[in-house]
Amino acid sequence: MAKWVYLFKEGNADMRNLLGGKGANLAEMTNLGLPIPQGFTVTTEACTDYYNNGKVISEEIQGQIFDALKWLEGVQGKSFGDTSDPLLVSVRSGARASMPGMMDTILNLGLNDEAVEGFAAKTGNPRFAYDSYRRFIQMFSDVVMEIPKSHFERILDEEKESRGVQYDTDLTAEDLKDIIGKFKSIYKEAMGEEFPQDPKVQLMEAVKAVFRSWDNDRAIVYRRMNDIPGDWGTAVNVQAMVFGNMGNTSGTGVAFTRNPATGAKGVFGEYLINAQGEDVVAGVRTPQPISRLAEDLPECYAQFIEIANKLEDHYRDMQDMEFTIQEGRLFFLQTRNGKRTAHAAIQIACDLVDEGKITPQEAVCRIEAKSLDQLLHPTFDPQALKAGEVIGSALPASPGAAAGQVYFTAEDAKAAHEKGQRVILVRLETSPEDIEGMHASEGILTVRGGMTSHAAVVARGMGTCCVSGCGEIKIDEAEKYFELGGYTFHEGDFISLDGSTGKIYKGDIATVEASVGGNFGRIMAWADEFRDLQVRTNADTPADTINAVKLGAEGIGLCRTEHMFFEPDRIPKIRKMILSDTAEAREAALMELLPFQKSDFKAMYKALEGRPMTVRYLDPPLHEFVPTDEEDIKALAEDMGMTPGQVRAKCDALHEFNPMMGHRGCRLAVTYPEIARMQTRAVMEAAIETQEETGIKIVPEIMIPLVGEKKELKFVKDIVVETAEKVKAEKGSDMEYHIGTMIEIPRAALTADAIAEEAEFFSFGTNDLTQMTFGFSRDDAGKFLDSYYKAKIYESDPFARLDQTGVGQLVEMATEKGRKTRPDLKVGVCGEHGGDPSSVEFFHRTGLNYVSCSPFRVPIARLAAAQAAIANVGK
Amino acid sequence: MAKWVYLFKEGNADMRNLLGGKGANLAEMTNLGLPIPQGFTVTTEACTDYYNNGKVISEEIQGQIFDALKWLEGVQGKSFGDTSDPLLVSVRSGARASMPGMMDTILNLGLNDEAVEGFAAKTGNPRFAYDSYRRFIQMFSDVVMEIPKSHFERILDEEKESRGVQYDTDLTAEDLKDIIGKFKSIYKEAMGEEFPQDPKVQLMEAVKAVFRSWDNDRAIVYRRMNDIPGDWGTAVNVQAMVFGNMGNTSGTGVAFTRNPATGAKGVFGEYLINAQGEDVVAGVRTPQPISRLAEDLPECYAQFIEIANKLEDHYRDMQDMEFTIQEGRLFFLQTRNGKRTAHAAIQIACDLVDEGKITPQEAVCRIEAKSLDQLLHPTFDPQALKAGEVIGSALPASPGAAAGQVYFTAEDAKAAHEKGQRVILVRLETSPEDIEGMHASEGILTVRGGMTSHAAVVARGMGTCCVSGCGEIKIDEAEKYFELGGYTFHEGDFISLDGSTGKIYKGDIATVEASVGGNFGRIMAWADEFRDLQVRTNADTPADTINAVKLGAEGIGLCRTEHMFFEPDRIPKIRKMILSDTAEAREAALMELLPFQKSDFKAMYKALEGRPMTVRYLDPPLHEFVPTDEEDIKALAEDMGMTPGQVRAKCDALHEFNPMMGHRGCRLAVTYPEIARMQTRAVMEAAIETQEETGIKIVPEIMIPLVGEKKELKFVKDIVVETAEKVKAEKGSDMEYHIGTMIEIPRAALTADAIAEEAEFFSFGTNDLTQMTFGFSRDDAGKFLDSYYKAKIYESDPFARLDQTGVGQLVEMATEKGRKTRPDLKVGVCGEHGGDPSSVEFFHRTGLNYVSCSPFRVPIARLAAAQAAIANVGK
Repeated sequence: MAKWVYLFKEGNADMRNLLGGKGANLAEMTNLGLPIPQGFTVTTEACTDYYNNGKVISEEIQGQIFDALKWLEGVQGKSFGDTSDPLLVSVRSGARASMPGMMDTILNLGLNDEAVEGFAAKTGNPRFAYDSYRRFIQMFSDVVMEIPKSHFERILDEEKESRGVQYDTDLTAEDLKDIIGKFKSIYKEAMGEEFPQDPKVQLMEAVKAVFRSWDNDRAIVYRRMNDIPGDWGTAVNVQAMVFGNMGNTSGTGVAFTRNPATGAKGVFGEYLINAQGEDVVAGVRTPQPISRLAEDLPECYAQFIEIANKLEDHYRDMQDMEFTIQEGRLFFLQTRNGKRTAHAAIQIACDLVDEGKITPQEAVCRIEAKSLDQLLHPTFDPQALKAGEVIGSALPASPGAAAGQVYFTAEDAKAAHEKGQRVILVRLETSPEDIEGMHASEGILTVRGGMTSHAAVVARGMGTCCVSGCGEIKIDEAEKYFELGGYTFHEGDFISLDGSTGKIYKGDIATVEASVGGNFGRIMAWADEFRDLQVRTNADTPADTINAVKLGAEGIGLCRTEHMFFEPDRIPKIRKMILSDTAEAREAALMELLPFQKSDFKAMYKALEGRPMTVRYLDPPLHEFVPTDEEDIKALAEDMGMTPGQVRAKCDALHEFNPMMGHRGCRLAVTYPEIARMQTRAVMEAAIETQEETGIKIVPEIMIPLVGEKKELKFVKDIVVETAEKVKAEKGSDMEYHIGTMIEIPRAALTADAIAEEAEFFSFGTNDLTQMTFGFSRDDAGKFLDSYYKAKIYESDPFARLDQTGVGQLVEMATEKGRKTRPDLKVGVCGEHGGDPSSVEFFHRTGLNYVSCSPFRVPIARLAAAQAAIANVGK
Repeated sequence: MAKWVYLFKEGNADMRNLLGGKGANLAEMTNLGLPIPQGFTVTTEACTDYYNNGKVISEEIQGQIFDALKWLEGVQGKSFGDTSDPLLVSVRSGARASMPGMMDTILNLGLNDEAVEGFAAKTGNPRFAYDSYRRFIQMFSDVVMEIPKSHFERILDEEKESRGVQYDTDLTAEDLKDIIGKFKSIYKEAMGEEFPQDPKVQLMEAVKAVFRSWDNDRAIVYRRMNDIPGDWGTAVNVQAMVFGNMGNTSGTGVAFTRNPATGAKGVFGEYLINAQGEDVVAGVRTPQPISRLAEDLPECYAQFIEIANKLEDHYRDMQDMEFTIQEGRLFFLQTRNGKRTAHAAIQIACDLVDEGKITPQEAVCRIEAKSLDQLLHPTFDPQALKAGEVIGSALPASPGAAAGQVYFTAEDAKAAHEKGQRVILVRLETSPEDIEGMHASEGILTVRGGMTSHAAVVARGMGTCCVSGCGEIKIDEAEKYFELGGYTFHEGDFISLDGSTGKIYKGDIATVEASVGGNFGRIMAWADEFRDLQVRTNADTPADTINAVKLGAEGIGLCRTEHMFFEPDRIPKIRKMILSDTAEAREAALMELLPFQKSDFKAMYKALEGRPMTVRYLDPPLHEFVPTDEEDIKALAEDMGMTPGQVRAKCDALHEFNPMMGHRGCRLAVTYPEIARMQTRAVMEAAIETQEETGIKIVPEIMIPLVGEKKELKFVKDIVVETAEKVKAEKGSDMEYHIGTMIEIPRAALTADAIAEEAEFFSFGTNDLTQMTFGFSRDDAGKFLDSYYKAKIYESDPFARLDQTGVGQLVEMATEKGRKTRPDLKVGVCGEHGGDPSSVEFFHRTGLNYVSCSPFRVPIARLAAAQAAIANVGK
């Protein structure tokens, strides 16, 4: 027979998977001999069984629960439903990882019409007993049965008003009896049956409610945001009640062993005398700082401090503890590693190393890699934020906080920025033409597009705050206003964006600049020491490069050369190239672009100071470059000696049904080899000249995108080699260079052994690879992915977190096949996943050489890579 | 040292891969002791070496050629370039498979200014000698050096005119000397050097020209059309000359052992007395039927017939032979299995079986599966075709010939058809709304779209002739005219299309109906006996179903349910469903569609008479159904109680960036489960009612498209099962049914082991799988695939012929993984590749259970499946 229920004394801290975090820690504290109200834990496996069993708790499990209950009655010397001294318990959820989305707590379970009288007699405090029963009915109805809380609160308010009292505590036992009657009527009306009087029925309903709460909408969303698998399940903890509301030698509180906001050492927390946990939350009375307990109950305080220190030493991490004092006797109800800000996490980790409590490896693993975002971007001033009104929320596409005046076109944004305004650019969606306006903005808000839309990718690259895919917005770009959250915002109105949460606020909320202290540097230095993966950056401009190098990038893993073509002095030239009819005319237009591209490369090589740079050749379909507005079409027509109609017709002919699967990537170089020739010339001339000018050795890395077949790569490579050798001969240089390819088409992964015959390195373009492997485009998937999350088909966004099962299989296959052909093949990743910690862990395990991500994600990737290396030592 | 050159006597018919078809057969005939002018073959490996070696013939190979030449001189008792009796040779290409695109023949090689005199002396016929030299210069210049033939022909014409003679044969030796001088001047002018006098130089240039011709544009196109790999290379045959133009006891001819057009038994061919091969081709003199040779040269004729019969018996197939008679002596220059029409192929195969010469298995393998198309579709009347003017050509998208009056919209086509006109529908591209107009047309011509475009797929399904992707057409759909080949065609003008060749003709060319004789049935019966693969059809209407069953379909492998929604009485209802805001409103609209869908299914079940039918649930993105023209929008708005503006906005909101990777397939059922519910009800009610009405047992097969993840399939399957069980309960039925999925997303193939836990069958959707695996859309790939063929990156259209390396790897992987989970998993294919012979062979080898293809391809698939089974016996 399986064991579904563990007494606290039967478990320990290592049993977190089975007992949940709360249950495992209660067991551990019991073993440490700490004052813990006794109880037992129903395992996470019981939860899984409940779901597999058509949402029924098996008789076996129920039997084990009742056995444990019998044991608890014996230990406590009380019985469930006893009319003279009833056993009361709390019921709380507890998953492996802390999950705010789930059911929290039921207190005072076990009370009924008879037991409440025995409880009154036993405590000698009828008011307390009836108040406990009243609270229990309210909590059970709300939390277990989902009867709206407001029904009960309205009764309570009416009663207080009719009796002319202000606080709950002013109600008498008789008042409460009256209220209890009314509460039970509400229950009966809502549920069609009497409030359950059998404590065992109450208990089983509460256990089921905890299991159910594992799968409520909030929990699902939370899991998705935090990468928690849906099949873990939650445990249930049943614990004898202790009461903090039994007079002035009783109380309850919450405390941390260190400050969770700053990381400063010393116990930090608050408590309330004569209160139950919910009173602290309700905020009616103001809690006292924990230090005041030394005055109120000095012995309890001393004991508390002693145990708190003991717990921190035992767990070797900052603890977050709940305690209750019942008539002068201290009980711990929970301890766990405390949540903390990124800032505090770094401080605490470094302090614990300095205190000799943990190793630098452990310190590195203590920081949640994703949380570094908080340190690198502005945040809202917490005080100012309190007054902020949330008007909507969407995808947290690029972190940081920003406030400014809304503008609806890139031109307007740029103009306002030049006048000194702070700008929020609001667009239906952004396109490459908007780059300058995006640069000029503090924040970007789009109606369409996901986490890997153009707006999101570019904003992250720039380190600019972006909230994307806000479908609720009704926008009129022509009339320059939008509606959201019941308000209309015109050009020049203020809004504020939080790109880390996706929230959109009305008005101008003050922000606080990012600040990175010396401890950040210590953690990063350790991370660099422990990691195997190299970390490069995706950067397309000298400015991005300099920034990324500061953030620790060891080179550029992806330089998207097309971004260099969108600037106003350049785009006319690429348009001319596109509209040309002959290879000669295209070549002539390309030669006008050559100096721009070359000078960009030179500036980037200089910024890199010898670090490597992988240059990806032109990738997007050509129609992304052609003009859409009439002014531009006219200008181009004039320049080309054509009529606007002819230009329009040419542009229309570039239309594609599925541009993502169209004429792009190396397909451009196959049809227009002159483009690859120009780009090779730009790379090689820039590299040779920079090497001559600076004396720093450069080895250019040229990357051919969207390859699906070895011969295709060979064809383009031959063009590159021919031109590169020509440039070298012209310049009298013997420069070495490498040619590789992106693996972003499933067929490339499937035929990687052949492709590696021609490629000196692979770089996984996991954005495209994810699109092709799943068969959905990142721009269109937003329409249905929500339904998929709701139906629990997918639990996370495959564009944000690598799908290890499917896409990962191709990554592993290609790496293995490629290295079989070429054992020294360098393999990296330059998709968005290069900056996602769980994906980085996968890339480490798969044996990649490097990841490349947007500049602001470089520290995250460095940390995640170190954590992956530490976690996988010996594996 | 490798052997690069084989004397004829060193080879045999089995060495076709090394010696090419011509070389192997010359060797075989030599071994049979037939009268063959002696010579040698330079191998296909020498050709490959030439390409690998930077287009240089190695010294080793050249040495072996000269050694063989020395041997030939010895055998013939003549020497190269000898001034009294020079050795003359012919040089001919010969690949493994006959390839009309390549260089054909150089005759009389070895002549130069001195040798020609020796040749004149030896033959005693100066006129003949100089004419031979003249011919050689002309042929060498044209074929080897690519100097335009017209230069020489002009000279010849001028000479004849100035001498007042009509035929070449009227020119004297002196005239010819004069002409030779002029020819040599042309050569010198064009090449910058004298006409080569050294016969060895002539020979090596000719060999190189043969090698080069392997890679000319025509050859590449031919290989792509005929699935011949580019790395095979061609052999070169060097053979002592014999002369058919040495007087009235000499001659040359071509003959078949059976009639290549009808298959009728008996030697069939023609010859010319006193002529060289090229004279036959030139058409100046009219050749005589071979039977006349019995009168002209009875001994030669008897010998010829004897050898012809011997050859047919030896090769056990109809032979195509070239012969020359030199002064009463018969020589065979070539024999090969003769090309024949599909009709003749079937006749000959059956006759050979009846004659006891081959087995039925061999007969089945003698028919080119693709050629059956000719038998199943109308063709042009060969006489009428002679007068036809080709005005353009494009993709042969759906076979058959058609002539009619052009119309530019589906409505106009339909109206004209109803008036009794034969209609050719000309469209930029077709869309599902055009279905009725396509049905009403004899042929369809589109400007855009590939072999698997909407027009092509639908036309093949209907068996209607279609030529697609004719980019040369300038079309004005609004003004209803198009320009092509220098003509303008207005509505009502006649054109003719050949969907088997892709040619477009001016005017109304008479067609001949298809006719399938009893021998066709014999071959098909044998094929059915030998094959392992089942053959189903893709059919969406009762009419298609009946047709497919007649053509031998063993069931429906793919019923695309969306095609049922496009008829005029139905499309408004699906539009209503799409524009509805709530699940209830959608359900109500769907309930209006239910009777239509159900009655279609019933009619199809009846037509199938117990054969299985796989019903695929709604697949295309919903925007394919919404109206685009203002009339329809207004009507819909009225019906929905909305404004036209609101309807338009709703339709616009359905826009997708990449519809192929958008909200389609089972994604529709995940977001709108009510669609799957309606379709399940339609299938189950139809099946149960039909079974009751006919007494024939039905086991519905329900197929969920575009699945990429097991949970996704499970989600939709649960909906299907719930509804199906409900319908069964309502009807009191215990009907069995199967639920499976398409494998058309790479991720589905990668996770097929998990998916097979839920799927009872797999059907590969190789169209989509090809798109996703290559990362290009079939609608857009046309823009660049030509460049890929030219660059020899891809040699065939992966949408027509399965890419076995990449896509095939996924097919194998999914089959293997799926069967690991579920050993009895039924696996089929329902993409376009199901009707392509080389792909069918792959599917057979991979162990699939069935292929499914459009009705008219069913016989092709049956034959190809049998050929695959026969070819792979014991493998």
